[in-house]
Amino acid sequence: MKPLSSLPDATVLADPDVLEAFRRDESHVAGCMPLAVVRPHGPAALRGLVRLARAEGFGLVPRGAGTGKAGGCVPTSRTVVVDLSEWPGAIQVSPQDLCLTAPVSAPLREVKAKAAASGLFYPPDPNSWESCALGGTLATNAGGPNACKYGMTRNWVLGLDVLLADGEVHTFGIRSVKANAGPNLAQLFVGSEGIFGLILGATLRLTPQPREHATLLLPVKRWTDLLDLPGRLAEAGFLPSAFEFFDPAVLAELRAHGPEEARRLPGEALAILEFDERGCASDAFLEALADLLGPVAESLEIASGARQREGIWAVRRLTSAFLKERHPKKVSEDIVVPRSQLRLFFERLEATGIPAVSYGHLGDGNLHVNLLAAGDTPPDELEAQLMTLFRLAVDLGGTLSGEHGIGLAKRDAFLALSDPAHIEVLRGLKRTLDPDGIFNPGKVI
Amino acid sequence: MKPLSSLPDATVLADPDVLEAFRRDESHVAGCMPLAVVRPHGPAALRGLVRLARAEGFGLVPRGAGTGKAGGCVPTSRTVVVDLSEWPGAIQVSPQDLCLTAPVSAPLREVKAKAAASGLFYPPDPNSWESCALGGTLATNAGGPNACKYGMTRNWVLGLDVLLADGEVHTFGIRSVKANAGPNLAQLFVGSEGIFGLILGATLRLTPQPREHATLLLPVKRWTDLLDLPGRLAEAGFLPSAFEFFDPAVLAELRAHGPEEARRLPGEALAILEFDERGCASDAFLEALADLLGPVAESLEIASGARQREGIWAVRRLTSAFLKERHPKKVSEDIVVPRSQLRLFFERLEATGIPAVSYGHLGDGNLHVNLLAAGDTPPDELEAQLMTLFRLAVDLGGTLSGEHGIGLAKRDAFLALSDPAHIEVLRGLKRTLDPDGIFNPGKVI
Repeated sequence: MKPLSSLPDATVLADPDVLEAFRRDESHVAGCMPLAVVRPHGPAALRGLVRLARAEGFGLVPRGAGTGKAGGCVPTSRTVVVDLSEWPGAIQVSPQDLCLTAPVSAPLREVKAKAAASGLFYPPDPNSWESCALGGTLATNAGGPNACKYGMTRNWVLGLDVLLADGEVHTFGIRSVKANAGPNLAQLFVGSEGIFGLILGATLRLTPQPREHATLLLPVKRWTDLLDLPGRLAEAGFLPSAFEFFDPAVLAELRAHGPEEARRLPGEALAILEFDERGCASDAFLEALADLLGPVAESLEIASGARQREGIWAVRRLTSAFLKERHPKKVSEDIVVPRSQLRLFFERLEATGIPAVSYGHLGDGNLHVNLLAAGDTPPDELEAQLMTLFRLAVDLGGTLSGEHGIGLAKRDAFLALSDPAHIEVLRGLKRTLDPDGIFNPGKVI
Repeated sequence: MKPLSSLPDATVLADPDVLEAFRRDESHVAGCMPLAVVRPHGPAALRGLVRLARAEGFGLVPRGAGTGKAGGCVPTSRTVVVDLSEWPGAIQVSPQDLCLTAPVSAPLREVKAKAAASGLFYPPDPNSWESCALGGTLATNAGGPNACKYGMTRNWVLGLDVLLADGEVHTFGIRSVKANAGPNLAQLFVGSEGIFGLILGATLRLTPQPREHATLLLPVKRWTDLLDLPGRLAEAGFLPSAFEFFDPAVLAELRAHGPEEARRLPGEALAILEFDERGCASDAFLEALADLLGPVAESLEIASGARQREGIWAVRRLTSAFLKERHPKKVSEDIVVPRSQLRLFFERLEATGIPAVSYGHLGDGNLHVNLLAAGDTPPDELEAQLMTLFRLAVDLGGTLSGEHGIGLAKRDAFLALSDPAHIEVLRGLKRTLDPDGIFNPGKVI
């Protein structure tokens, strides 16, 4: 693309074979061919990009490691991909400030490792944590199993460096959890999926690294008993750092066709619980927990060491891989149902006749409902099934995305299911922050 | 005020003696006489108020219990006070969803008590927690000692009901910590001090109620050793739920003129630490902590029961009261300095010659710097001292408000010390959300 050749301090890629690779993320959505892919190496490149985009009328699509699940970083029509995977900067941990700073290009794996090396913990743990870049987790407000105790990425963001429509990088927020000078603008950009500006760096809050873990594999006698358990644990003073589940259909399929480790699993449904507080591996803690779980448990396996803990988590990992292998064209959804409504939700879901199986994060009601037969379902019917599913969640006070975001994949459903006044507010914010519509056009709204 | 007489479902107060009482909050700022005070009893009143305000060109100033410290709820010119202290609604706790819903009129004390009655905990604990209304804590993103572990009010807001400029109450957010359907609009209103819309109700996240506490009174040999302690604790895996401090001048004054309990305190400076995690009252925990604190401690008193804990916290409370009594016209500031910069900050503050003493929340760098002689300082000079103080904090990466907000009291300083682009963004958001400028005019920006 001609005008980009003058861009200072940037690498511009234009080879069609290279551009092709930037059309997709890990969602089912294919984007357009981008006009180019630009790797900016500093602020001058960003300034130039914004100026050109506004003058020439093309959009800027931010991209990190491309591991998104909602098409947030795939190119729409007449856009340039801004590849931030090499944006300069180092991860710097400050134990004294209980925070770290990092560029968006930093692998989340390294962010977590650098914190751990100082005895500190950065909790967000999306499924892609070993392959994603920090930037994508900020843009999508990523979750993961830990969110049921630690909250989402948003809760760990103290500050952000953001490229705004004036072409400059502005810093919002400070190096402290206490900060109250006006509305918090950093929070406006977390989870905004790049539609208000491009995130380039972050100041992240840390907490002491957990010193102990207790991991429990819990096959339950009755599926419905599992659905009350998060609330019963909370009332008894237990807050798991992860509470994953597998519904009866998933467990049955694992038992019938799954790998060796899974065939031995008893019960009607399955949960994995993890605790990470001080003393959670003590006899007293585990006995109190076993007393509470006893009545619903078909059996109870408690990991006493790192290897056994790894073995329990392998069950979670092999489930995703196993289902994907048996049903390569399955669609995995990411809805939320408030936990008090879970029984009702599963009753209503069954009544729809949609052939769905579920697993995911029971501890916060974030369900990965899987339509296994999606590959054999006519597109219109699949679309209708997904809308039915989203409506079920929304009608019960939930929502259509728990951790992946809206991106391109769910934009139409989001627009259809939202209060029109919300959309009007979002569009107003968009017009204010991005008057020429250059930032990630066509996403979310 | 004439047009208000037609307002449905509302009580309108117009007696000048009554209006007079609404001119102030707990800051030093006096507001104008309001045109009226309106107590809305339902949505029809709000709809009418917004219509009238837009048509007649008056502003709406939200008010809860009036315990704010920044003049956020005092009337500016041509405004009606919207007294939400009787806004209808009940506190409803859902252990299953680990959340509660409450109207803005709910006393924070009752919100915390209702959560506790279900074995659950709502952490925010501003100094006014026994007298403030929930609404003010949401509008100002209130903090308190607990923030160093639990974060601010923002971290506990899942959803908000907000009156927007269309005259309707809209609900943002859901009953789960996992929610990622587009940018989080609830977060936009937390801490916005009523300038984008009026908050009427909230869905708040809860966590299990702590079952144990350990409270430590820690006089230290050397003041400067205290300043490194938050970071050293974090690296050793300790996260206090409160870490308060008193500088050498405050401690000396307490010792010389304070109440009996304070005269016995040794050391150069003083800290109060509290922990609330499971096992924190165990010998093993306290011994590990004592090992870490030993080298800096002049002495160490550990509370072993509720009464002794209360006795230690009394030292914190009596300090505020005692200083206020001895220096009735003192000005107490609310700045933040990143903890890594505390030594440098206190060096620079001393070098300015400003007669200031400090206490507050060392655990997150939120310092209540007190200008004791403010009553005898000419207003211009006091203003200059405060600006010097704010600049010191900002230059070291801090900010001019940690927990009180900007309101009217700090608006000019906020505008003077902020990146003009931030202010432009805030004004853009304001124009979008409140095109006629009816919501809390003249505050923050």
